[in-house]
Amino acid sequence: MKNDGYLRALRGEPVERTPVWIMRQAGRYLPEYRATRAEAGSFLDLCQNAELACEVTLQPLRRFDLDAAILFSDILTVPDAMGLGLSLEEGVGPRFARPVRDAAAVTALGVPDPEGELRYVMDAVRTIVRALDDSVPLIGFAGSPWTLATYMVEGGTSRDFRRVKAMAYEQPALLHDLLGVVADAVGEYLKAQVAAGVDALMVFDTWGGALGWRAYREFSLPYMARIVETVKSAPNGSSTPVTLFTKGGGQWAEAIAATGCDAIGLDWTASLGEVRARLGEGVALQGNMDPMSLYGPPAAIRREVAAVLADIGDGGRHVFNLGHGVLPDIDPDHVAVMVDAVHELSARGAS
Amino acid sequence: MKNDGYLRALRGEPVERTPVWIMRQAGRYLPEYRATRAEAGSFLDLCQNAELACEVTLQPLRRFDLDAAILFSDILTVPDAMGLGLSLEEGVGPRFARPVRDAAAVTALGVPDPEGELRYVMDAVRTIVRALDDSVPLIGFAGSPWTLATYMVEGGTSRDFRRVKAMAYEQPALLHDLLGVVADAVGEYLKAQVAAGVDALMVFDTWGGALGWRAYREFSLPYMARIVETVKSAPNGSSTPVTLFTKGGGQWAEAIAATGCDAIGLDWTASLGEVRARLGEGVALQGNMDPMSLYGPPAAIRREVAAVLADIGDGGRHVFNLGHGVLPDIDPDHVAVMVDAVHELSARGAS
Repeated sequence: MKNDGYLRALRGEPVERTPVWIMRQAGRYLPEYRATRAEAGSFLDLCQNAELACEVTLQPLRRFDLDAAILFSDILTVPDAMGLGLSLEEGVGPRFARPVRDAAAVTALGVPDPEGELRYVMDAVRTIVRALDDSVPLIGFAGSPWTLATYMVEGGTSRDFRRVKAMAYEQPALLHDLLGVVADAVGEYLKAQVAAGVDALMVFDTWGGALGWRAYREFSLPYMARIVETVKSAPNGSSTPVTLFTKGGGQWAEAIAATGCDAIGLDWTASLGEVRARLGEGVALQGNMDPMSLYGPPAAIRREVAAVLADIGDGGRHVFNLGHGVLPDIDPDHVAVMVDAVHELSARGAS
Repeated sequence: MKNDGYLRALRGEPVERTPVWIMRQAGRYLPEYRATRAEAGSFLDLCQNAELACEVTLQPLRRFDLDAAILFSDILTVPDAMGLGLSLEEGVGPRFARPVRDAAAVTALGVPDPEGELRYVMDAVRTIVRALDDSVPLIGFAGSPWTLATYMVEGGTSRDFRRVKAMAYEQPALLHDLLGVVADAVGEYLKAQVAAGVDALMVFDTWGGALGWRAYREFSLPYMARIVETVKSAPNGSSTPVTLFTKGGGQWAEAIAATGCDAIGLDWTASLGEVRARLGEGVALQGNMDPMSLYGPPAAIRREVAAVLADIGDGGRHVFNLGHGVLPDIDPDHVAVMVDAVHELSARGAS
């Protein structure tokens, strides 16, 4: 691979500069993405068209000096394939026609075949791998079982997760049944992504931070641990680094590291240096610039980059990223300032 | 005072049982509150009517065996008194007619006279103090400067704090000017509450957790520290315990303790025991049951209470509370289960 800095940083091997990629780097802040999206039709049409999904995956790599590509898809493809009937309307957010709220609905759920209902994702992976032609690694991903369960039970996005948290407190056994089948589905899905050619995996536990610390250890973390184990024991899995990202999970970093993951994604509320001091070098850290800091002028963006790099200190085992997805109204030129500043300010002698 | 367990727990003195109060304990989940609110007219009418504000402050104490009363008011009374024109519509949330978005608007802000524009709050405090008749302590409160600034700049509630965070990254000096005048206003307001008779103070930094760890130390914490200092140096201030509550601030507990506050409020993402181990006994901890756990059946609520008490261990310097406000659709009987379980499960021999 021409540029494997991202994979080396994850493994704790020497790198010439801190690698950087951006959560939601293929997305609405790019005019070329909006054009392709308009051509595709709906967001789901875009996800399901391997050629166009490949095109939007590659677009940010043409603009920015990024060290990894990430599959263009959505975490909700899995529950959609489980039969919930996903719709994604602009301005409304995701909706499931058939939310999961009782034992009958949980029992009816099966594990989708990644090369069946989800073949369109695997086709996109294969198309992107060919197009990347060993230039940079491709990151595959899925939502965490807990995060997917929030959408599946609520029927869409939620501000407060009232239904799914009520289920956690009223019918914990039912929620565990749901999380179990979702974990199986996600495990198969990620194994298939590895088989189709992704070089690394990321699990997005976007809503894990809504749980209490004990509830997180009961309803989210064990299911991510099961997925790490499933992936690691599959063919090529042991050499595929897995990053777990729980938004708001900085204070739980020790527990996250104990899953056996290779890297922990952190949001901007955590200090990379402090988490590194707590955990040692046994796990890579990813993050963690505030996405809103990209509203600032270029000089302020460079200062923020410098502050994030200074926080982690010598830069060992660090992948630079935002602490959450890039916002749709960010100026792409500001993203370029960030990416270039990361490389420039982290440059070290060849090792 | 008949029951000063809350104040003793804050000071680290022995208590017979862990004291408990509930954030937003005077509120919509109580039918008697809804009746008084209907009688008063709008929410602001209720805040501005000392007799009715006193009535709703006392209502939860009649139902539950609570160890403290909290002034019925709203954190946005201060920016309203600064001339921003507050409206609070059911279902819409708070709105300011004149948000603060440029230097001219910041310069125009003055520090309101707590016995002038805000006299209605002080009248409510005096009325409640008389009615409580030394039964339990009365907690006064204010919003943190950062949290108030989010509403003042956004013009209301926000999901992402885009305007105020853009100001932080684009015009930090302007935001500091705004925070400075708000901190002066809050300092005077809390000093006046102490003079009017409150026994303890709480600062709600509801949105501090939206900031990055460095930004929190720049834009929220120093202004709360200034308020602690202002209050502590005022008449009766040094004997008035101050609790700082930053939602999502568990990982910053060391920095919060360094302000000189008497207690730190924690949400349910933090482990009380872990924070206690990090900080020692120098500061009291308040919290931290998930408000959603009150949806569960009584047996589950008692288990949650037991788990929170077990987390803090011997129960030293602990005030039991939810990790955020009680939700409007919670069954009051479930609140009673929680309050009684706290007292029963924490009972220790007289000391």
